[in-house]
Amino acid sequence: MSNILTPRSQDYSQWYNDLIIKGNLADYSAVRGCMVIKPYGFALWENMRDVLDKMFKDTGHQNAYFPLFVPKSLFEAEEKNAEGFAKECAVVTHYRLKTDPNNKGKLIVDPAARLEEELVVRPTSEAIIWNTYKNWIQSYRDLPILINQWANVVRWEMRTRLFLRTAEFLWQEGHTAHATKKEAIAETTQMLDVYAKFVEEYMALPVVRGVKSANERFAGAEDTYCIEALMQDGKALQAGTSHFLGQNFAKAFNVQFTDKENKMDYVWATSWGVSTRLIGALVMAHSDDQGLVMPPRLAPLQVVIVPIYNKDVEARQKIDAKAEEIMKELRAKGIRVKFDNDDNNRPGWKFAEYELRGVPVRIALGARDLENNQVEVARRDTKEKASQPLEGLTDHIAQLLEDIHNNMFQRALDFRTEHTTNADTWEEFMKILDEKTGFVYAHWDGTPETEEKIKELSKATIRCIPLNNEQEAGKCILTGNPSTQRVLFARAY
Amino acid sequence: MSNILTPRSQDYSQWYNDLIIKGNLADYSAVRGCMVIKPYGFALWENMRDVLDKMFKDTGHQNAYFPLFVPKSLFEAEEKNAEGFAKECAVVTHYRLKTDPNNKGKLIVDPAARLEEELVVRPTSEAIIWNTYKNWIQSYRDLPILINQWANVVRWEMRTRLFLRTAEFLWQEGHTAHATKKEAIAETTQMLDVYAKFVEEYMALPVVRGVKSANERFAGAEDTYCIEALMQDGKALQAGTSHFLGQNFAKAFNVQFTDKENKMDYVWATSWGVSTRLIGALVMAHSDDQGLVMPPRLAPLQVVIVPIYNKDVEARQKIDAKAEEIMKELRAKGIRVKFDNDDNNRPGWKFAEYELRGVPVRIALGARDLENNQVEVARRDTKEKASQPLEGLTDHIAQLLEDIHNNMFQRALDFRTEHTTNADTWEEFMKILDEKTGFVYAHWDGTPETEEKIKELSKATIRCIPLNNEQEAGKCILTGNPSTQRVLFARAY
Repeated sequence: MSNILTPRSQDYSQWYNDLIIKGNLADYSAVRGCMVIKPYGFALWENMRDVLDKMFKDTGHQNAYFPLFVPKSLFEAEEKNAEGFAKECAVVTHYRLKTDPNNKGKLIVDPAARLEEELVVRPTSEAIIWNTYKNWIQSYRDLPILINQWANVVRWEMRTRLFLRTAEFLWQEGHTAHATKKEAIAETTQMLDVYAKFVEEYMALPVVRGVKSANERFAGAEDTYCIEALMQDGKALQAGTSHFLGQNFAKAFNVQFTDKENKMDYVWATSWGVSTRLIGALVMAHSDDQGLVMPPRLAPLQVVIVPIYNKDVEARQKIDAKAEEIMKELRAKGIRVKFDNDDNNRPGWKFAEYELRGVPVRIALGARDLENNQVEVARRDTKEKASQPLEGLTDHIAQLLEDIHNNMFQRALDFRTEHTTNADTWEEFMKILDEKTGFVYAHWDGTPETEEKIKELSKATIRCIPLNNEQEAGKCILTGNPSTQRVLFARAY
Repeated sequence: MSNILTPRSQDYSQWYNDLIIKGNLADYSAVRGCMVIKPYGFALWENMRDVLDKMFKDTGHQNAYFPLFVPKSLFEAEEKNAEGFAKECAVVTHYRLKTDPNNKGKLIVDPAARLEEELVVRPTSEAIIWNTYKNWIQSYRDLPILINQWANVVRWEMRTRLFLRTAEFLWQEGHTAHATKKEAIAETTQMLDVYAKFVEEYMALPVVRGVKSANERFAGAEDTYCIEALMQDGKALQAGTSHFLGQNFAKAFNVQFTDKENKMDYVWATSWGVSTRLIGALVMAHSDDQGLVMPPRLAPLQVVIVPIYNKDVEARQKIDAKAEEIMKELRAKGIRVKFDNDDNNRPGWKFAEYELRGVPVRIALGARDLENNQVEVARRDTKEKASQPLEGLTDHIAQLLEDIHNNMFQRALDFRTEHTTNADTWEEFMKILDEKTGFVYAHWDGTPETEEKIKELSKATIRCIPLNNEQEAGKCILTGNPSTQRVLFARAY
């Protein structure tokens, strides 16, 4: 079991795929680029969703649901947005199939059932939503609108990766409407903070908060804020984005309101989203060669109890009774726990299986343990094992889950610190990217042309200009032109 | 405000649409047949979903997620299922748009980006799921598979109605795989019972449990079980279905397993679903000319507190303090409550507004109430108002919510009892359908031809053959041929 995965050092990409498939998070499907999210993966997503949903509601947002389809004429209304997504749209053109006259039992698209106007399967919902908001907004009294939706979206990507980039994915998209620019920007940064808090405090993964350069902005946005995380192979992963959309969509859909002074103005907008991609980030950031390592606050299963039976039936009954008791006490504390007394599998198999699945804490107990009033407690993150007295066990486990979270976060932070480097010359820049990998802070002259050229030459992109970035005079690593600040570069997913 | 709705007696259909739109549950969208579910409607759906999700998990099911798209070759594999849904499929044929060379700023479908194989937007997911289960099932040890998914589906209906019949709708679909026929049938009826319990105990709506005639069966099922409810206009509404699929999908997708005796057999299947249509049922069954009447256990807002201010600022502060105190106590009991102290609207406007929204209990309090240590409590279902001492108020409200649920259920049950009639002749049958309306129990000779003829002549369909139906010799109302039991007829949504 221990070599069920391709080692991380041998083939990082295959290691990742192995984790997803063998860790039972997802499976390939018959549809190009689309995946099946299996129950274990979906339980993780449900936990993420529930935490985020509460955070959204606590900041005043409500959920709603808008149509899957966007009529082409609406889709193209905001030009930059349309241009940005046109290349990867799934398009519905017909609304009926019929029996193939030449081959009974087979179906063909019915040419008589062609739609008058094609429907785009939403790659994002600004267009359909702003076309709706138009009917909801007349005066400042109708503002703000603070709505989120949990939905599936489709982007016909050519190269897909399980969770990281799939043709269909699940996400949430917040879409808000405001009376003032200031309020819209405050919403944009508030939601960035919500995302950062979620990724750090639940996924145990440190992030850099920043703003994208013009080249990397969301199509149709005035500014795109993002959080960037570092994976174990030294590549960056964008974990969430929050967009200040200015009045672009309000103008495209003619959404005006009368303000308190009875003047007309266009409405200010934001949108923000995170997706099932976060599962990919979580897996890549924490796992090892033995399998997944689930951050405790999101783990579908936080504790597993494995009984070590011998042939003594009476001892077995005592073990079962004690395990049930431990399980009950842990559940009463709100801890997600399973007692695996399945006779078909041996303890060693179970140990490996739950290690693969990344369950944070394993409790093993056998007859001898019970005689000594103790159990064996193993933590997944450090693989440490220790005997633990039965007395006070529940509190110990609750504390251990917190310790594991903190340790995982610190480990990821240490890794990031080790893999964050300043580069002052092009040679340094390339050497770091190729050898040390990770985040590189470097000066850039601020032009899109230079950014594009750097990307072309190095395959590294500007991940963001960090918020509250230190100002420092310097020279662009590529052009030598003057620069006022370092920006964050990395090769990225 | 009180005549904001078209009266039920004047135009039932318009009354229903008014309720949905003015009650803020949903809105029309720019996409033919698709609706926008507004925050208030979505909060209701979230409550329904949460209750059902817990019921599914308590019966051993897990959630997962399968692709939105079904490749045509998979879609057509189970012939009856394919035939049943082919007429109403949205079909994706292309994966890219491009700029119209004749009209910059407009987009057209890129003819070079035609899919090799068309993708059907799922109208239901048996095909994609059974094609996946094939890879997950080898032996009886892999069974049962008990999976549910919450998803959007698309059926290109020609005549749509908000919530009742929309091109895209939200639903859950359970898909289970079993080693034996008996176990699959037990699962089918278990889930029917879950649905019946949900509709009766949460939606306060009595249902008849039964099995569909062959004509009304789900395409691809061996048997379709259903729950049928009666609306206030005397029409039936199918509220949920649970299908025993036999080995049809296992055979279509070649899903075999080795049983305990090491013999190969095809896997047995079920599927079951309820949708946002339930919101339509809830609205139609309980509402009145003043607006929605929300069943308390699902109401997004269970209690609203409306302050009656006068010009005395000090009195206002006391009212606010007391209202906050009441709200806090109700929340501590898990009751969903809002204190509406918005100064922009007068109490009378608020009364009408929350009546329209169907909030089960309204608490009003003014200075004089406080002097008398009481509040005014109004219930939405009966419109009764009464003064209530502050002491013991929380317990009173909690009990009142239960009473309202029970009263709403009983009222719906009484209505159904009054509108359930036996018919022994064709004349009686037609007279009941045309004048009294409602459920009609009548004898039928058991043939699909007669059923079809009855439907054609009367526009009534066999809603179901009730479970544990009383056996009684009689003659078919249309043909006079012998029959052994009455079946349930009605005109239906």
